[in-house]
Amino acid sequence: MAGFDEIAKQFVDFYYKAFDADRTSLSALYRQESMLTFESVAVATVGSIIEKLTSLPFQKVQHRVDTTDAQPSGQHGGILVMVTGALMVDDEPKPMNFTQTFQLMPDSGSFFVLNDIFKLVYPAL
Amino acid sequence: MAGFDEIAKQFVDFYYKAFDADRTSLSALYRQESMLTFESVAVATVGSIIEKLTSLPFQKVQHRVDTTDAQPSGQHGGILVMVTGALMVDDEPKPMNFTQTFQLMPDSGSFFVLNDIFKLVYPAL
Repeated sequence: MAGFDEIAKQFVDFYYKAFDADRTSLSALYRQESMLTFESVAVATVGSIIEKLTSLPFQKVQHRVDTTDAQPSGQHGGILVMVTGALMVDDEPKPMNFTQTFQLMPDSGSFFVLNDIFKLVYPAL
Repeated sequence: MAGFDEIAKQFVDFYYKAFDADRTSLSALYRQESMLTFESVAVATVGSIIEKLTSLPFQKVQHRVDTTDAQPSGQHGGILVMVTGALMVDDEPKPMNFTQTFQLMPDSGSFFVLNDIFKLVYPAL
């Protein structure tokens, strides 16, 4: 089995490709106990998370991942992943910085997203 | 006992005040099983973490917390905390964006930092 760093990178690659192509496909990654905090709005359960993600006020989105850092978390095989990057929505030419943290938990030979916190980052003044 | 959101805010307030005043005092927050990934350099155990934090190439530092988001993590009372903010070091007038994720774990009525990932965020081009 791949190490936590490799699993984190594979997850991040898969997640943003799926997000940018078809947000409904992300439902495979969440479970009933999953939580998403998106721009400080918290939702839980896979249904509410997908509803939140598919109702975001843009049609097209493209994420660029700049950094991925991971750590094993706890004694139950969890992996903590922190991403920084930029995203562009619709026809807005200016990219926005974002940071996103996932806690992945093992489940039947794969991983699901237990925790997901997303935040845009505005340039410091 | 305070809820996870309140605990997260109290922790964040304490952490950055301690960091900016005296980094060695942060040793009380870590344990032997703790991990720190600082700008993608990973260290573990409280001794190595404090050595890393106290050897950072600046004398003075001031953190400003802009956002704190928290979620309960797992079934063992853990709390996941994601911070975004800005920091200024020494006499450099320009603030730098940062993001930092902590996983707090309960221990004898208090919490310690199991996971800590810090990353500077550079403005998207």
